[in-house]
Amino acid sequence: MTRENALRAAERTVPWPDRTDAAVIFIGRIRTPWTSRLDCPRQGRKDGPLCRIEVFAPWDEALPGIDLYQEIEVLYWLHRSRRDLVLQSPADNGTARGTFSLRSPLRPNPIATSIVSLVGVEGSALLVRGLDCLDETPLLDLKPDRCAFTPLAPPTKGDSDVGDPATGT
Amino acid sequence: MTRENALRAAERTVPWPDRTDAAVIFIGRIRTPWTSRLDCPRQGRKDGPLCRIEVFAPWDEALPGIDLYQEIEVLYWLHRSRRDLVLQSPADNGTARGTFSLRSPLRPNPIATSIVSLVGVEGSALLVRGLDCLDETPLLDLKPDRCAFTPLAPPTKGDSDVGDPATGT
Repeated sequence: MTRENALRAAERTVPWPDRTDAAVIFIGRIRTPWTSRLDCPRQGRKDGPLCRIEVFAPWDEALPGIDLYQEIEVLYWLHRSRRDLVLQSPADNGTARGTFSLRSPLRPNPIATSIVSLVGVEGSALLVRGLDCLDETPLLDLKPDRCAFTPLAPPTKGDSDVGDPATGT
Repeated sequence: MTRENALRAAERTVPWPDRTDAAVIFIGRIRTPWTSRLDCPRQGRKDGPLCRIEVFAPWDEALPGIDLYQEIEVLYWLHRSRRDLVLQSPADNGTARGTFSLRSPLRPNPIATSIVSLVGVEGSALLVRGLDCLDETPLLDLKPDRCAFTPLAPPTKGDSDVGDPATGT
């Protein structure tokens, strides 16, 4: 069963550092049908329920042009997740793997990314399919899916860098 | 030409809010060949230069299992980006689009995501191709690419949710 926050056999935590390095702001909130973490899907699906991404002012001023894209990358903050787990046991079977080898919501920086289908825009809200998160999840960012996006900026020197130049190591 | 931080014609900023909502920690740093933003590629490429992702202790304890995946999603903090732009003009041609319709590094939460090819693991460092960021960029997260990852956790009720249940709206 999906857990709330209890530790399982073979899992390991580390002491949480006594510092922070940068701050995020919540620029909106995500409305989904799921009000318990025990019900959330493990991954979003393209034919999943319609969800609503509400963008707060003044950040709704950054929406113009988003309807040019059918696939949007959504970043959100998993506000109910513990952050100190380095080894996790998703199957709760006595074995564990590193957090970075999982897409678990429990991570040092609990930032999730999903690719969603944009179904419509209603004022400052987006209607989408493909999410997997709790109702009321805080929104961090929206951007066109990398595969659909062509840069508008002029080319840079680095665009053509390939192979193995010195990497400073 | 790629800009540093100057504002362009048709661009718009909003006042930066007098609050923060959550804090991130930097769990490592990324070493790349690019030391100026003017040289960074606009997007990473799979045949791009070898880059090195150094994971700081104690977060290196979360690496076991990452070598099971060839494609890794990397999240990083664009520490040199202004955050208050809502309309941007990447081509600097007098027209602008909303920040959320661009993959520009200038965003209210300057979090970038890239999909990289994992070339090797050296202790607590990953050798990868596909990045586009400045040398010394702070690392936020690593996770298997969504397409390669199959959840290990048991199924949930939400896994099978499709269609249009009430979304609370």
